[in-house]
Amino acid sequence: MRATSIAPFLSVRRGTLAVDFYVRAFGAKEVFRIENEKGELVARLSVDGAEFWLSDESPRHGNFSPETLKGATARMVLTVADPATVFDQALAAGATSVHPVSKQHGFLMGRLADPFGHHWEIVKPLGDDGQ
Amino acid sequence: MRATSIAPFLSVRRGTLAVDFYVRAFGAKEVFRIENEKGELVARLSVDGAEFWLSDESPRHGNFSPETLKGATARMVLTVADPATVFDQALAAGATSVHPVSKQHGFLMGRLADPFGHHWEIVKPLGDDGQ
Repeated sequence: MRATSIAPFLSVRRGTLAVDFYVRAFGAKEVFRIENEKGELVARLSVDGAEFWLSDESPRHGNFSPETLKGATARMVLTVADPATVFDQALAAGATSVHPVSKQHGFLMGRLADPFGHHWEIVKPLGDDGQ
Repeated sequence: MRATSIAPFLSVRRGTLAVDFYVRAFGAKEVFRIENEKGELVARLSVDGAEFWLSDESPRHGNFSPETLKGATARMVLTVADPATVFDQALAAGATSVHPVSKQHGFLMGRLADPFGHHWEIVKPLGDDGQ
């Protein structure tokens, strides 16, 4: 493990459903999960070793879901070997296409909104030959 | 470079100042930067190899700053070797302490708000001996 890392921590409503979605959409695996008696959870997920956290929102602690704020303040850049396949898998799991996968700015890139209001760019850097 | 990675892409106001802040606060280095004639930028930064992106917000493209939404929908978990030093360096650069660095849930952890409304947890996992 690297000494220095940055992992996003997403705030959502319906956290347990969000975990299910990320498992189906991105093939995420649960690294850690804790749930309270109200069914609110904190989870740490790994997509092929790339980790992120999520939990049910808690506005009084400054953790707001995109549904509460009507938008998101950070999007996630998920780099994968095959963006088209992951993009389609996420749509099948319930995501919405914002931009389909296409070549842009040296990347093969698509943008989607997940059912919890977070946006993901599913990308792969293109080589010098544009492939 | 790993095949799969997740890098957060932060939306901010005053992007050029935000880059300056992250350089001073976290020792970030610019990997990529492009600026338009209005001074709006897209930048990719690396904190000791851990990358994130930022750009000036663009609400019509669904990219909202915390200042616009009055809160943030994701916080950043920055794992470092020495959280107390990074935390103090960030405060000196203009961040605000939300929780000072303390032992919590198996981590040495502090939470701060940066001047652009994004929150960062500066953390280090504790060993089995609590150190």
